Amino acid sequence: MQITPPAEPAFVLVNPQMGENIGAAARAMFNFGLTRMRLVAPRDGWPNPRANALASGAGRILDAATLHATTAEALADCTFTFATTARRRDLATPVFTPEAAMRHAAELMSNGGRVAVLFGPERAGLENADIVRANALISVPVNPEFPSLNLAQCVLLTAYEWRRLSDATPPVARGATREAPATAVEIEKLADHYEARLDEAGFFFPAHKAGSMKLTLRNLWSQLSLSQADVRIFHGVLRQLVRHRDQLK
Amino acid sequence: MQITPPAEPAFVLVNPQMGENIGAAARAMFNFGLTRMRLVAPRDGWPNPRANALASGAGRILDAATLHATTAEALADCTFTFATTARRRDLATPVFTPEAAMRHAAELMSNGGRVAVLFGPERAGLENADIVRANALISVPVNPEFPSLNLAQCVLLTAYEWRRLSDATPPVARGATREAPATAVEIEKLADHYEARLDEAGFFFPAHKAGSMKLTLRNLWSQLSLSQADVRIFHGVLRQLVRHRDQLK
Repeated sequence: MQITPPAEPAFVLVNPQMGENIGAAARAMFNFGLTRMRLVAPRDGWPNPRANALASGAGRILDAATLHATTAEALADCTFTFATTARRRDLATPVFTPEAAMRHAAELMSNGGRVAVLFGPERAGLENADIVRANALISVPVNPEFPSLNLAQCVLLTAYEWRRLSDATPPVARGATREAPATAVEIEKLADHYEARLDEAGFFFPAHKAGSMKLTLRNLWSQLSLSQADVRIFHGVLRQLVRHRDQLK
Repeated sequence: MQITPPAEPAFVLVNPQMGENIGAAARAMFNFGLTRMRLVAPRDGWPNPRANALASGAGRILDAATLHATTAEALADCTFTFATTARRRDLATPVFTPEAAMRHAAELMSNGGRVAVLFGPERAGLENADIVRANALISVPVNPEFPSLNLAQCVLLTAYEWRRLSDATPPVARGATREAPATAVEIEKLADHYEARLDEAGFFFPAHKAGSMKLTLRNLWSQLSLSQADVRIFHGVLRQLVRHRDQLK
């Protein structure tokens, strides 16, 4: 029988201590669309009302989480395991950045692999007995002066990198009105409008500098990347200033 | 006078409410090596002992933080401002991913720009009056079903992307002993060793399949990417098994 592999890695929390941190980890996973949590012998038993209180909108992750007595049991069906660790270990195991790890996980899963990521308890991190089960390590490239990521932060960054893999958000999206940029002729007419009124107002002085002043002003309008709405606003500003001046005459 | 531009963006917390969250934001910044925090009218005044309690090792970020009465004052010396926001706003302002934003910040700063990133208060996020001051927005591509990043998490992800720009960690680093991979002749000798002892033990049976069984085993040794230390372990394993068998004879 062909079993469809899961579409996302399982996040395995090994001996988590405070319920609040399990809840925070569930939120961090669900923020980036991950839903498969496994728990190995949580210190305060399971279910844990404090985990649910903190998870709030991500409670469904906790409801679906599976409980295991040992790390071996939690990993039984997995074909590749990453272990997150703050310290470089003196092991032969390769060390991945979170980004490279999630890319490798996606490759393995597209070939039918079942991938898990181990996260250790809050204070001590994973024990060596668990780390040697892993095919690879994940180490977040933190500031060596202050490498103090907590459990939920480590889950958050790993989940973030998972989502970035498939995220279709453009790196830079122009805002709504930027979608109608002004055409060259619209910029030209705006420049003409200002130049004419400023000429009447004696702006281009002294006369021998008028030519270069006009060029500078035209160049400025071109450089601003105005939208059509922006152009209308600048026309309106000038018209109103002229109208007000004429009323004062 | 030429003023040296700062080597990192300033992170500006606008009207932060709980001291704990200011402390957590300081930790998140310093985890990724950022140190320039500015505070606009924190709800509970400043300094705030609860911020210091939570910041622990990142207390120096709070000690160096500057306090401002208004967002305008906090941004006075900046040439480019990003505003972080969960929602897409109906404004002309372009929206960057955290990665693209930090890359753009680095480009601006390498040309002498002074860049700030605004973070809003915990519940409500930034008000429109502050958002319109920004040259660009940053929006983290979260799960649209559960877009609930808190203040420190938003700071963490933005700081993480800043550090990723200049981080020289290789995506995948081989472990310590992997640095001495076995040579082809070492693999060959290992294969010979196993083949000879297994032949004595009657492993290659039936005889007409012995050729292909030997090929399969040789191919397996080649595929394992063994280090020199691994090769020594496998030799030792085989020698000991043979020695133990001979003792039992």
